[in-house]
Amino acid sequence: VAVAPLPEQREVLSGLLSQMCTAAGEALRLATAALVNEQERLALRVQASDAEIDALRARVEEIAFESMALHAPVAGDLRAIVAAIRCAGDIERMGDLAKHVAATAARQARGTLVPSTAREVLVEMARLGCAMAAKAAEVARTRNVILAIELDSDDDAMDRLLRDVFAMLLDPAWDHGIGAAVEVTLLARYYERFADHAVSVAKEVVYTVTGKPPESLAL
Amino acid sequence: VAVAPLPEQREVLSGLLSQMCTAAGEALRLATAALVNEQERLALRVQASDAEIDALRARVEEIAFESMALHAPVAGDLRAIVAAIRCAGDIERMGDLAKHVAATAARQARGTLVPSTAREVLVEMARLGCAMAAKAAEVARTRNVILAIELDSDDDAMDRLLRDVFAMLLDPAWDHGIGAAVEVTLLARYYERFADHAVSVAKEVVYTVTGKPPESLAL
Repeated sequence: VAVAPLPEQREVLSGLLSQMCTAAGEALRLATAALVNEQERLALRVQASDAEIDALRARVEEIAFESMALHAPVAGDLRAIVAAIRCAGDIERMGDLAKHVAATAARQARGTLVPSTAREVLVEMARLGCAMAAKAAEVARTRNVILAIELDSDDDAMDRLLRDVFAMLLDPAWDHGIGAAVEVTLLARYYERFADHAVSVAKEVVYTVTGKPPESLAL
Repeated sequence: VAVAPLPEQREVLSGLLSQMCTAAGEALRLATAALVNEQERLALRVQASDAEIDALRARVEEIAFESMALHAPVAGDLRAIVAAIRCAGDIERMGDLAKHVAATAARQARGTLVPSTAREVLVEMARLGCAMAAKAAEVARTRNVILAIELDSDDDAMDRLLRDVFAMLLDPAWDHGIGAAVEVTLLARYYERFADHAVSVAKEVVYTVTGKPPESLAL
């Protein structure tokens, strides 16, 4: 069996990670659409499609192990390959979180869980989360350090949205009861965690390229 | 510089992972004690102690990279070393989740957030989470497959406790308002995620030993 040279394997890994990020972002976008438009079939489709992200992760690990076993990489190459395994873990988790949103959407379609007043901020969180997944995809593919730094400020924006959600729930004007508050709390947390993992992916890549975390880079 | 032989490095890694699990379990136990007894100083101490777990993770990664770069391990050895990196990531996250409980405890000490009626089930979740961390520590140290399988049923028990929490919050008898419901929802999710990561650690170890996930092993 011909073994691909190391640089080629690294390119394949970058491509797969980028593809995983794109798929996770798309899953989050569709899960949120299913949530706000009460589309049960779409929600079920998103849940099922998570298996594709899991399969991509398995492929990343397979190539990474093959690469380590056959090329015995050192230094930067070794770091990049271990980083790929870690990034794949983060992105798989992004897919899981999108799946959690889809699961809520599927239940929601059989009886409203998320009041319309809460949907606007959740849609905003989803929009930001998708944009972050797209940036992480780009960072994985091109090792663009500036985009990675942007992700840090996107994450601050996500944290502000999370605080907005809590403020909305604690406002005396919230008249949708405890059940809806619990659902919205969990959903908001899913979006916020999704964003955290997108940031982690970008950090791993930048660390591999520069040997430094993105926030320490003066540009 | 003398390089330790590979089996010795693997033993060191197992020991560090075990130590990390023990520390994460202890952090969860103390954070929960701080929460239910409204001990702000204890809560702050637990938050600060998370840095020790982070340092252990860094040490695991350092040894793992050294081991891969110098010994170029293949097959089972390579899997075990990559698994150690992954486990360290899971256990660091367990520490973060204990820290989140401690952060809630610190805020709680300045004004009650978690009503006493909710404390019993949270204490039960913490107790189970600590027991699971202790088992994961033992699995990391001894590669005890039976304990790893036990962790799967512990995780089912944790999921039941999570459902108990939601049932309590949705019960009309819940008269502690939305703010407390939001706090309890997040706390319950932290315990449940802590447990998930303990299961992941055990699965990684068992997979390394047997080449199979624990649930597939007929005993």
